[in-house]
Amino acid sequence: MFETVALGRRCGDKEYAELAPQLRMRLFEAQRQCRERGIPLLIIIAGIDGSGRGSVVNLLSEWMDSKFVRNHVFWMETDEERERPDDWRYWRCLPAEGRTGVFVGGWYGPSLRLFCCGEIKEHEFCARMHHWRGLEASLADSGMALAKIWLHLDKKTHDRRLKKRLQNREVHHFTPYDKKTAENYEGLAGAASKAITLTDRADAPWIIVDAADANYRNLAVARAVIGAVERTVAARDAKAARVRLEEDGAADDITREGVISTLEAIDLSAGADHAAYKKELAELQSELRELTYRAYRKGISSTLVFEGWDAAGKGGAIRRLLAGVDARISQVIPVSAPSDEERAHHYLWRFWRHVPRAGFVTVYDRSWYGRVLVERVERLTPREDWSRAYAEINLFEAQLTARGNILLKFWLHISPDEQLRRFREREEIPWKQYKITAEDWRNREKWPEYMCAADEMFLRTSTAYAPWNVIAAEDKKFARLSVLRACRDALRTALHRPRKALRH
Amino acid sequence: MFETVALGRRCGDKEYAELAPQLRMRLFEAQRQCRERGIPLLIIIAGIDGSGRGSVVNLLSEWMDSKFVRNHVFWMETDEERERPDDWRYWRCLPAEGRTGVFVGGWYGPSLRLFCCGEIKEHEFCARMHHWRGLEASLADSGMALAKIWLHLDKKTHDRRLKKRLQNREVHHFTPYDKKTAENYEGLAGAASKAITLTDRADAPWIIVDAADANYRNLAVARAVIGAVERTVAARDAKAARVRLEEDGAADDITREGVISTLEAIDLSAGADHAAYKKELAELQSELRELTYRAYRKGISSTLVFEGWDAAGKGGAIRRLLAGVDARISQVIPVSAPSDEERAHHYLWRFWRHVPRAGFVTVYDRSWYGRVLVERVERLTPREDWSRAYAEINLFEAQLTARGNILLKFWLHISPDEQLRRFREREEIPWKQYKITAEDWRNREKWPEYMCAADEMFLRTSTAYAPWNVIAAEDKKFARLSVLRACRDALRTALHRPRKALRH
Repeated sequence: MFETVALGRRCGDKEYAELAPQLRMRLFEAQRQCRERGIPLLIIIAGIDGSGRGSVVNLLSEWMDSKFVRNHVFWMETDEERERPDDWRYWRCLPAEGRTGVFVGGWYGPSLRLFCCGEIKEHEFCARMHHWRGLEASLADSGMALAKIWLHLDKKTHDRRLKKRLQNREVHHFTPYDKKTAENYEGLAGAASKAITLTDRADAPWIIVDAADANYRNLAVARAVIGAVERTVAARDAKAARVRLEEDGAADDITREGVISTLEAIDLSAGADHAAYKKELAELQSELRELTYRAYRKGISSTLVFEGWDAAGKGGAIRRLLAGVDARISQVIPVSAPSDEERAHHYLWRFWRHVPRAGFVTVYDRSWYGRVLVERVERLTPREDWSRAYAEINLFEAQLTARGNILLKFWLHISPDEQLRRFREREEIPWKQYKITAEDWRNREKWPEYMCAADEMFLRTSTAYAPWNVIAAEDKKFARLSVLRACRDALRTALHRPRKALRH
Repeated sequence: MFETVALGRRCGDKEYAELAPQLRMRLFEAQRQCRERGIPLLIIIAGIDGSGRGSVVNLLSEWMDSKFVRNHVFWMETDEERERPDDWRYWRCLPAEGRTGVFVGGWYGPSLRLFCCGEIKEHEFCARMHHWRGLEASLADSGMALAKIWLHLDKKTHDRRLKKRLQNREVHHFTPYDKKTAENYEGLAGAASKAITLTDRADAPWIIVDAADANYRNLAVARAVIGAVERTVAARDAKAARVRLEEDGAADDITREGVISTLEAIDLSAGADHAAYKKELAELQSELRELTYRAYRKGISSTLVFEGWDAAGKGGAIRRLLAGVDARISQVIPVSAPSDEERAHHYLWRFWRHVPRAGFVTVYDRSWYGRVLVERVERLTPREDWSRAYAEINLFEAQLTARGNILLKFWLHISPDEQLRRFREREEIPWKQYKITAEDWRNREKWPEYMCAADEMFLRTSTAYAPWNVIAAEDKKFARLSVLRACRDALRTALHRPRKALRH
């Protein structure tokens, strides 16, 4: 695929002196548009060894307003990265709205090096590309501008440059694969060709640049970035028009009369006897303490998600659960309104921030499911965005459960009558008053809509690796025991699975 | 010192049932005050093994609004932590305004364990305590509420509990020192006694709690936290009154006529010949490339700070400098208005965020010196706060330069006439127009005040480990060469120093 690229495109110094200032202005203008419209801009600079990736990064810093540009490179995984799902290292560096992130090599770098050196097989390489393709689609859908640039060199130029750099001792290797990759032109070009074919799509296309001539390369890179921004701006405008159109149409009636939902089928009559409860709770807590220590030593992380009606007892269940877990290896992330930094990122970014390390336990008190519950019901997010979230969430959860890690999702279910009783009780107990607000009463009125949204959520996000646990919570004690039992069972199962420890 | 504590204070269940709800309400109220007044609350829970630190953490989560509480524990350093100055791991976890951070063991944990096990000598232990004392003073001064709680047990109770926990296999060790510490009651009590004596001061006092009885312990902890918040609120009010008083007084005239400043003594006539410049620049860049690679391999990090007049050429100098450094190991942090998350922390927090890992290069384009320059001159910060900053900055920089790391601070100096010339030039060149704003013109009018603030800054923050480099920048080429030469020299010196590699 690179044959047509390596035609030796050039740009003379005189012509460059004329064109460069214009492109510089346009690039600057594109960045200003990103700032004004809150578009995050991600530039991936990949390429053949010696093609000038570093110079291009420097050029971008020079031509753009560097205050809003950050460069990132991914080659040595830190232990904080190694102990989390693979994508964590990229998510933590994604640019916020109006900001520019330059990823040198991007997520392609590590895979290309490994494949080129024969460390991973073709089917794994293809699976990885498929995965990146999915991530890029999700980022583009969320409104990010993506410029993926491959700097190419023909073999002759590559070999000449490599020889010269070796003579000048200018070749430096940050990973064990760098040297092998640099010397294996055919292998890298082949891998790149495959990667580009598999991940070249309309919303995040590759731009392949002949990098033999620095002038031509610089202009082409600037044009590629400008193009990515313009494409994103156009897509945003089109989307805004679509959303307006949708709003003009019939209101999206979320309830479906007569359909029996998952939640309606739940038997809420189950209860627990007080004495038996106290005894079993203590046993479960003590067992959980032991099991979480063992999971810690084996490097198995646990992610626990709590959703459910207001006053369903999420907080109480979490407290009883964590009473049995060492506070040093567990944390609760209560999810309410995002901070400014969080709001300026993809909606999953704020959850990626808190993903547990190997062996640790993170409890989300409410979670990413807000996207398809409150954001849907309250119409805070257009249908186009929340309806995409089911697939995005499934991908995210697949990563959380990779390598034998635990993910448990609980929905605590109560009847509207029980909720009313608890709301009233909260209004009466001094230290519970803060828990009850006008919003709770408002949410309560939308019970049928939430029911329906929850149903669709169960349907679309109950996966083999992360099924939903709907817990009858009309009786708090019964619910707590159910939650603790589910955690215990999940830990037992995970601990019995043979598995290499990640941590030492 | 613990003799009087271990008097077996108790609280009967009946009394507890009466007192607990009241204290719970007061604790909740204290937290609300923190939210309303933007006070960060840091709770350090340290104590003897088996004294119930975990239970206390759970209790606090239960009694406070856990949405705003985060627990942290520091025992295994990650490699991202190990490669940065010692305090980085604590700074990254400090609570923001209105938030509560619970540090289990706090910064005392690791030192206590090491000293108790004989791994560090008394003088090092004392030095560490002195250091924490300084950090706590700085945090308290910045308006943080600090509750430092030591949970104590008499030897008999400790031994009985340890025996029981060992029988139940309830003792878990996260560091190699945990077991030794647990079994060395006398050693830990002695170390704690010393630590408490050295770090007990009015703005961050220790509360020592007899933890033998859980009821009594819980009430005492709640009281300690409430006390810390009340103390901080009172201090804030007193400070606000002082600041008002100060403002009523004579305006703080910052310029001192007739004094010859550091900057006035700079010879601005130096220049560089174009051809010689191009040649030396290329040589320096190539040498810097090589030197930074070697520093990377040796794990020596570089922190470069650029300050100076508007239009003095900071950006240009940084670009020339980084043109010689691999973009994969360097980053520029342009410092302008802080984000919301940054604004809600101690003013040094945002700089700690970007401190380089071992071997990496971080360039700050403007820096923490804004505190004593723009914030002082523009009166954005009360005198009380910026005048404290000199000492805080010196402490911060001492950490940056520990273990042989490089810190270089540049002030690019130009004359007012040259600045005017450059401002006008910027207004004429299309892609430089964005660089010139009304603010630049306003700043220009305050030249004498900035001069004076800069003078005091040079005086108070030029340390042996981090001196200021004042660079004559009237001629851009001369300035750039000076900057690059200074970096080269610093790298050469650091590389010649014998030093154990931190990275592998």
